[in-house]
Amino acid sequence: MSPVTPSMMSDPVAPLPAVGYVGLGMMGGPMAHRLLAADYPVTVWNRNRHKLAKLIGDGATPADTPAELARNSVVVMMCLLDTAAVEQVVFGPDGIAHGIQKGAVLIDFSSIRPDATRDFAKRLREATGVGWIDAPVSGGVPGAERGTLAIMAGGEPADIERVRPIVMTLCQRFTHMGPSGAGQVTKLCNQILVGSTIALVAEATKLALNAGIDAAKLPECLRGGFADSPVMQIWLPRMLARKFEEKLGDSYIMLKDLDTAHALGRETGTPLPMTTTAAELYRLLNVKGGAEWDPAALISLYD
Amino acid sequence: MSPVTPSMMSDPVAPLPAVGYVGLGMMGGPMAHRLLAADYPVTVWNRNRHKLAKLIGDGATPADTPAELARNSVVVMMCLLDTAAVEQVVFGPDGIAHGIQKGAVLIDFSSIRPDATRDFAKRLREATGVGWIDAPVSGGVPGAERGTLAIMAGGEPADIERVRPIVMTLCQRFTHMGPSGAGQVTKLCNQILVGSTIALVAEATKLALNAGIDAAKLPECLRGGFADSPVMQIWLPRMLARKFEEKLGDSYIMLKDLDTAHALGRETGTPLPMTTTAAELYRLLNVKGGAEWDPAALISLYD
Repeated sequence: MSPVTPSMMSDPVAPLPAVGYVGLGMMGGPMAHRLLAADYPVTVWNRNRHKLAKLIGDGATPADTPAELARNSVVVMMCLLDTAAVEQVVFGPDGIAHGIQKGAVLIDFSSIRPDATRDFAKRLREATGVGWIDAPVSGGVPGAERGTLAIMAGGEPADIERVRPIVMTLCQRFTHMGPSGAGQVTKLCNQILVGSTIALVAEATKLALNAGIDAAKLPECLRGGFADSPVMQIWLPRMLARKFEEKLGDSYIMLKDLDTAHALGRETGTPLPMTTTAAELYRLLNVKGGAEWDPAALISLYD
Repeated sequence: MSPVTPSMMSDPVAPLPAVGYVGLGMMGGPMAHRLLAADYPVTVWNRNRHKLAKLIGDGATPADTPAELARNSVVVMMCLLDTAAVEQVVFGPDGIAHGIQKGAVLIDFSSIRPDATRDFAKRLREATGVGWIDAPVSGGVPGAERGTLAIMAGGEPADIERVRPIVMTLCQRFTHMGPSGAGQVTKLCNQILVGSTIALVAEATKLALNAGIDAAKLPECLRGGFADSPVMQIWLPRMLARKFEEKLGDSYIMLKDLDTAHALGRETGTPLPMTTTAAELYRLLNVKGGAEWDPAALISLYD
């Protein structure tokens, strides 16, 4: 495969730009499939190569290293577990930074620390001139499969607009929230709202049960009012059902995100009394053996 | 006016049952107007009689006392400020209990204490045989005017079903949540969810601002996702606008409701860590001079 020229991306009559995708897990896998289905040429790399079989069968080209992948891509995408994994894949030996072409753009869909993101973006810009867009996603595996994710982005406006057509293949909303790190900050706000609202719904549900009302009727009774929320509609029935192994998410991951939000609160001098209370409840749940349960398991703390 | 017979209410060819409405304030006024517009004969009583002029002009009949109103009504409705006002109007001198007819039903739309409600319902039943439906409302003045309220009810199923046709003149949803007091418990759950989510959105908004993102874009960016809520859509822009005198509600009333919820938590042995944290933030806001501001003013605590 010959290196592509960056100009492809903005020329409407040229072929679709070559995309590299690193990290083909629960989210990255279906996202890469959507790119293939939209006829983008896609190169893939994953730490565990066996996850690539289906993508290769569908037309993706495997690369031996992230650097090789980057050499063949105008748009390099990543979706990785945490800050350490991102640093390793970009700046480690044979990392993306060693292959990425001038004029390319890097999009990081991972949810990682905002301060680390800003540092990584600066290092990549200084070493290669390439722009880094932090673009964490919301919407889960169904959203990745259906292309209905919400993607919240930080970075240079010109970079954001250049990749918008490709990114819109993957989501229903791609919002530029500010400079480098702004996508990660937005994702933390998202996690604060989701994680803390689940904790709130848990105690309200338990109060309803203890006070003898038909708690199962609350979502319908309150639908459309100020008290309504997707969290109440989705998680309140899950709390009543008490099947915490059937997961929409892991409690330990929510705790990790709330602790990261707390660190951002300290860094920016922002008190977070509600979020901190919620985080301590998740920590208590983890201590009680619920780390790998759905966050709905918070209600079990009150049993 | 001659006393009506209770049988009117369940006979489809009989005239509409006579309704009495006590407490024609911000909510009761528009609710009584809707009853008149639906051709119910309506008798009204209010502590401050000057609030009745428009209703009388529209066809309502004023009563001299709550007892007189009750003597002429098959369905007696109330919407009053607090527990003390309800007790006074029902059991005080010339109160409803002294006039209400056997076979009538009392509907209390006020938001008051669940334990007091159960006590009042028992006293009324023992003294008169009349059933008491606690039926607090959600949806505010616009909901009262448009008949789009959500009404959450506690009481005997037979009483609830008897009054359903009349109550549906006033709301889009009338949900039986359990025995006496269940409506009040549900309203407290509603207030827990609304009041605490506003507190949560306040700190998330401040974190977003302090971390340099475009907080005004959060509602659109997160719309439809797990983090979405009417509270975020409605109150986040109000927090950014910082016009706390333009009110959807009063902070001191939210504090009163959260404190009542806390009392129910103590009574039922239910820990409420999120709600309690929120309540203390409202208390702090009240101390800082924000008692009569909109709850959006919570964000000012972080300035």
